[in-house]
Amino acid sequence: MNNARTTGKVYLIGAGPGDPKLLTLRAAEAIEESDVIVYDHLVNPEVLAHSRRGAELIYVGKRAGEPSSSQSRINRLLISCAQDGQIVARLKGGDPFVFGRGGEEAEALADSAVAFEVIPGVSSGIAAAAYAGIPLTHRDYSSSVAFITGHDAAHTKRPAVDWSITAHAADTLVIFMCAQTIARIAREIIASGRPPATPIAIIRWGTYQHQEVCTTTLEDLVAADQAHAGGLTIDPPAIAVIGDVVRLADKLAWFGASQFEQLFGATAAPPISNQLEFV
Amino acid sequence: MNNARTTGKVYLIGAGPGDPKLLTLRAAEAIEESDVIVYDHLVNPEVLAHSRRGAELIYVGKRAGEPSSSQSRINRLLISCAQDGQIVARLKGGDPFVFGRGGEEAEALADSAVAFEVIPGVSSGIAAAAYAGIPLTHRDYSSSVAFITGHDAAHTKRPAVDWSITAHAADTLVIFMCAQTIARIAREIIASGRPPATPIAIIRWGTYQHQEVCTTTLEDLVAADQAHAGGLTIDPPAIAVIGDVVRLADKLAWFGASQFEQLFGATAAPPISNQLEFV
Repeated sequence: MNNARTTGKVYLIGAGPGDPKLLTLRAAEAIEESDVIVYDHLVNPEVLAHSRRGAELIYVGKRAGEPSSSQSRINRLLISCAQDGQIVARLKGGDPFVFGRGGEEAEALADSAVAFEVIPGVSSGIAAAAYAGIPLTHRDYSSSVAFITGHDAAHTKRPAVDWSITAHAADTLVIFMCAQTIARIAREIIASGRPPATPIAIIRWGTYQHQEVCTTTLEDLVAADQAHAGGLTIDPPAIAVIGDVVRLADKLAWFGASQFEQLFGATAAPPISNQLEFV
Repeated sequence: MNNARTTGKVYLIGAGPGDPKLLTLRAAEAIEESDVIVYDHLVNPEVLAHSRRGAELIYVGKRAGEPSSSQSRINRLLISCAQDGQIVARLKGGDPFVFGRGGEEAEALADSAVAFEVIPGVSSGIAAAAYAGIPLTHRDYSSSVAFITGHDAAHTKRPAVDWSITAHAADTLVIFMCAQTIARIAREIIASGRPPATPIAIIRWGTYQHQEVCTTTLEDLVAADQAHAGGLTIDPPAIAVIGDVVRLADKLAWFGASQFEQLFGATAAPPISNQLEFV
């Protein structure tokens, strides 16, 4: 371990869920201060407008059909920039420590004695639900909420999520990154004994102007999946919220929810631009 | 239901966890715009500095020895201000829809046809953990996290948390508002079969300059509770994080964690002022 002090530093920043106004004041400050901005696929490009003129912008997210930069390569990039004395803003969608691999990057920085600071962000799961009119907890309906990855665990050292336990993890379940897997997950949750009529909301592009929301039930989602040849196709990014709190979505839909037609319509609808619209 | 349109509006705002820089840009804007600011106990007063000169500030939190304003009284206040044509900023610590009763307030506003907007905030559970150097998820240690209230359920219509299920809810458990109950909860989690050596961090005043962190294990916490006549006394506000990710806290303690002495010391230590301190 190299204990040499460097003058560089890395900010591990949660850039929030999409709406660029959901950036924190501290994050905006840190971006303004930085020489290098290293950012992911799900960071709204409008957030980059806080960077100072001349700052270097480095994209490390996925491009269509290509994998994202490997984690070890990103780690090396952050370390080398900081060791060159640069201030680095590492921007991640949502929060860096909730399915953001911020922990791994922080470990790599600590191992190289690079100074870092964590700037938590508004989590995409919380914000997408809020913009869909869904409170994740409610004294009448939910006293716990679990955040679970919907990604298959192929690339992790952890075993895959055991839905027979996780289905009962909390009154409200929020499944991140679940576009490709939510129909299968719904089937497993029913098989684990949660009522088939449990409501579910699938939210695409949460908090963006073109946010789309589909509310249904676990059983109807599974039926729609079975009715489509080859299964449902939902394009990412998508987050799902499961539990009785979803029933409040219609009443509390302050953001002007547009149902997306992809699930039950014959053809995929284009994203609908939502304007802020009050009751 | 009164469908009369009013020109007033209520912003249900997450004021973030304590560090006033963790306020979002949108929240700061909404506070600046508002005629009336209705705020809770756990909102950092520095956040109120964003209000415009002449805005009315109304405190509805707990005072020492007194209960907080009743929820129905707060609902009536928000509705009557908005119906008078005022713009109201309703500030809550953390996020309004995660143990914030924002859902109940939104329902009351919708029932009265009062326009509202939800501005999600950085959740206290996520941020307190981040400032203690704890990533809530990690590819090696945790693929799920559950947020659970540590409050006794006496005042809710829901049954109390069933720890025999909840103990296994997720790889990482975050228990909100648990100062009075965490020793009992730790005992129940062990009784439910989670390993007694599971690490736990208790974080008081998360993200504040005087944040305090104590990391121990479930069994040592229970032993400390039994060793104290009358049990441990931990003063609120406190959040606990349980799970293997807590082991990273020492390595990733970028904020300058101060162990708090309350648990294992003979006397309660005063809050220690932490300065930002890099590796």
